Amino acid sequence: MPAIANPSLLILLHHHHHLRSRRFATALLPQTLLSLLSSSIRAPALRAHSTSSSAQTQPLSTDNARTGRSGSISSPPVQPDIAQKIDINPPKGTRDFPPEDMRLRNWLFNNFKELYCFEDRGNRRVALRPELTPSLARLVIQKGKSVPLPLKWFAVGQCWRYERMTRGRRREHYQWNMDIIGVPDVTAEAELISSIVTFFKRIGITASDVGFKVSSRKVLQEVLRGYSVPDHLFGRVCVIIDKMEKIPIDDIKKELRSAELSEEVIEELLQVLSVKSLEKLEEKLGTVGEALVDLKQLFSLAEKYGYADWIQFDASVVRGIAYYTGIVFEGFDREGKLRAICGGGRYDHLLSTFGGDDIPACGFGFGDAVIVELLKEKGLLPELSPQVENIVCSLDQDLRGAAAAVASILRQKGQSVDLVLENKPLKWVFKRAARINAQRLILVGSAEWQKGMVGVKILTSGEQYEVKVDELE
Amino acid sequence: MPAIANPSLLILLHHHHHLRSRRFATALLPQTLLSLLSSSIRAPALRAHSTSSSAQTQPLSTDNARTGRSGSISSPPVQPDIAQKIDINPPKGTRDFPPEDMRLRNWLFNNFKELYCFEDRGNRRVALRPELTPSLARLVIQKGKSVPLPLKWFAVGQCWRYERMTRGRRREHYQWNMDIIGVPDVTAEAELISSIVTFFKRIGITASDVGFKVSSRKVLQEVLRGYSVPDHLFGRVCVIIDKMEKIPIDDIKKELRSAELSEEVIEELLQVLSVKSLEKLEEKLGTVGEALVDLKQLFSLAEKYGYADWIQFDASVVRGIAYYTGIVFEGFDREGKLRAICGGGRYDHLLSTFGGDDIPACGFGFGDAVIVELLKEKGLLPELSPQVENIVCSLDQDLRGAAAAVASILRQKGQSVDLVLENKPLKWVFKRAARINAQRLILVGSAEWQKGMVGVKILTSGEQYEVKVDELE
Repeated sequence: MPAIANPSLLILLHHHHHLRSRRFATALLPQTLLSLLSSSIRAPALRAHSTSSSAQTQPLSTDNARTGRSGSISSPPVQPDIAQKIDINPPKGTRDFPPEDMRLRNWLFNNFKELYCFEDRGNRRVALRPELTPSLARLVIQKGKSVPLPLKWFAVGQCWRYERMTRGRRREHYQWNMDIIGVPDVTAEAELISSIVTFFKRIGITASDVGFKVSSRKVLQEVLRGYSVPDHLFGRVCVIIDKMEKIPIDDIKKELRSAELSEEVIEELLQVLSVKSLEKLEEKLGTVGEALVDLKQLFSLAEKYGYADWIQFDASVVRGIAYYTGIVFEGFDREGKLRAICGGGRYDHLLSTFGGDDIPACGFGFGDAVIVELLKEKGLLPELSPQVENIVCSLDQDLRGAAAAVASILRQKGQSVDLVLENKPLKWVFKRAARINAQRLILVGSAEWQKGMVGVKILTSGEQYEVKVDELE
Repeated sequence: MPAIANPSLLILLHHHHHLRSRRFATALLPQTLLSLLSSSIRAPALRAHSTSSSAQTQPLSTDNARTGRSGSISSPPVQPDIAQKIDINPPKGTRDFPPEDMRLRNWLFNNFKELYCFEDRGNRRVALRPELTPSLARLVIQKGKSVPLPLKWFAVGQCWRYERMTRGRRREHYQWNMDIIGVPDVTAEAELISSIVTFFKRIGITASDVGFKVSSRKVLQEVLRGYSVPDHLFGRVCVIIDKMEKIPIDDIKKELRSAELSEEVIEELLQVLSVKSLEKLEEKLGTVGEALVDLKQLFSLAEKYGYADWIQFDASVVRGIAYYTGIVFEGFDREGKLRAICGGGRYDHLLSTFGGDDIPACGFGFGDAVIVELLKEKGLLPELSPQVENIVCSLDQDLRGAAAAVASILRQKGQSVDLVLENKPLKWVFKRAARINAQRLILVGSAEWQKGMVGVKILTSGEQYEVKVDELE
């Protein structure tokens, strides 16, 4: 049943074999150049500070005009007050930084150290994209209401980070990205993790090789709110806590203190982060918060999907990206030799930071480097040999054109052909046929060709016969 | 038959549907960052000039130690004299520019105006690759003698040019690249053009829509040699002549004069360039030169392949890339509305400019922008609708886990599934099923589920039945 074609997807589609049978559309995100919002970089720091600290007094807006969904989208982000924005414009060429912009700025600045960024000839500050989600967010906003929700899209795209190279970490890698846009329930996160588990199973990885650590940022949020820590500090605290396994705990504490957290909050945070079971978490947080409700539902769904043995609760997982708002998860190798294999989470407020309406969303990124290390480690790298149906060769320089004609005929019938383009001895041809795993050798010799025939040798059985060119199948 | 796996190709493979059935291996060229050979940029101009002009007195070296092939590889490039290179090193941190390096430098400088180039944090001058061939050349040199020749590789990669945007010309595009490395004969060019013709036919483009203009750079080379113009001017002259249809003829003449060509040579060149048939070319050049031998063989092979009506000789085609040495071709739309659709040629000396041994090679680049314009123009853009085998939905919020289990079972059997993740009315589910072209709807209802069954509705026929979950196929 033909529908309207989407020309921009036509030639750009990358088929990823393992993903084919899932109900996810491919969205290729061709723009690798990420605009760095240069105006925000030049804005006066003082204004930014005063605005972002005053934001905590603004009312929380949880209603979402576009989708009509409100209940399950929780804060922290504060919606900009539209009327105020129109009345009180910042001086020309400068910008205010409401919390959602400030979070984006923080995210950008945190990434600057690792970004491939430069100025183009039009004096725009651009960078090679470090990940795909912001590009996806922009695409969704651009498509607007013409795409019915939910969207379930995946893309495999190249990403760049300028950083120290370590095992499974290069400056350039491919990332498989999968996102569900428009579903507020954790059924979406459960579906995403299910996709990754299906992928793992297909490539031979089991639950004894890898697992997923799962938590929710709402855990931290509930702790911070319990101590009346302002919401705008939330993203910053998450980014600090994500460094827990990379830098000494005293440095973490120092950074948390500089984020204006009291000793009491810091101690409570660190205690909560050490929790490794939902039962203990319930003791800590009580039963009413969204964090626990979401997590319990996710673990219950995991059982139904059949991947309960792959996932475990671990409050220390927060992920390093500022825009996550709910469930976060990361795939890890159980031997603990490698970096995180993949990671994802819910980002219900990313779209508004790009100027769109908020739509509930979640997704994950899965790089190609660490998984290949793991497959090597486990001896699971497949042996992929070249395969070709025919190798076609003329026995005589004058018959090269005839061999080309035979190749053409076979290709028109959908057969793959390696046409020998040079004068080579038969010994060489047999050697090449073996190397490319050719199934049969078609020999174009003078006597046969005059009868409109060619010689065929089935290379697996050694069987040999002559056949009319028209009858070659 | 398993052979040694090539891990670096494992996850990175991009399958391009139209190319699948050909005997071409996919080589993905992941490095989009092109090193700009920063040392050469900083080298003193005077040394460069004196070296490149003295190069014309060096003997031509046509022997190729690696491949043992010599006869059919013609000049112009001059092999660096190894002994001399070891004795007379340029001052530390500076470099000489033998002709092959100079050509590369010219090519780079010509591209600077259009390159996305910048300095990275390690102070390396890098650029986003404008095309794939130099990356391929580097890969071939790196693989060295471990890959048996000939190589027949293709890649689909992203390329960037910072330039004025016009129809079918963007700053970022995907390019299908196909190369044959190790075949000195024009059988290789014939095979490349055959691949493009096969592709055109598959997407519905005919010989009345597009054609190929074919020539050989050896035509110009023979004219220049006839007038004793030094070989090192050859690449520069080609680049000037490529601008013929873009800038006024008087400017072309001015540029040719500044390349030290006499009026007589310029007039002769312009005359030869206007030749549109092999017969006329033979009158001009005589029968002995390689240009004519190559071209005649190519046209003869085209007849055997069955694409003679797609190609025509046109001496004005030289292509804008400095490194071509022999046959050059470009695909064009016969209505003359669009830019070149694709282009390619022989580049027997590119590898030595990267420090490798020369290996005969040819290839083409085919961007995704112009062909899509042409397909639109001809009404040939296919309508590609989403397709999914099953849409699975629970009739009751409590049965969401059950629906997830059903989705899991179907996916394990290789079926594609769109799982409804929210509570939606059946009307919504049917609408979505129609939009994604789902073949059947699986409904998970309470009464059936208690019997271990689900409801199935075949959406094309309207047929409805219940089936045991285990028996779902």
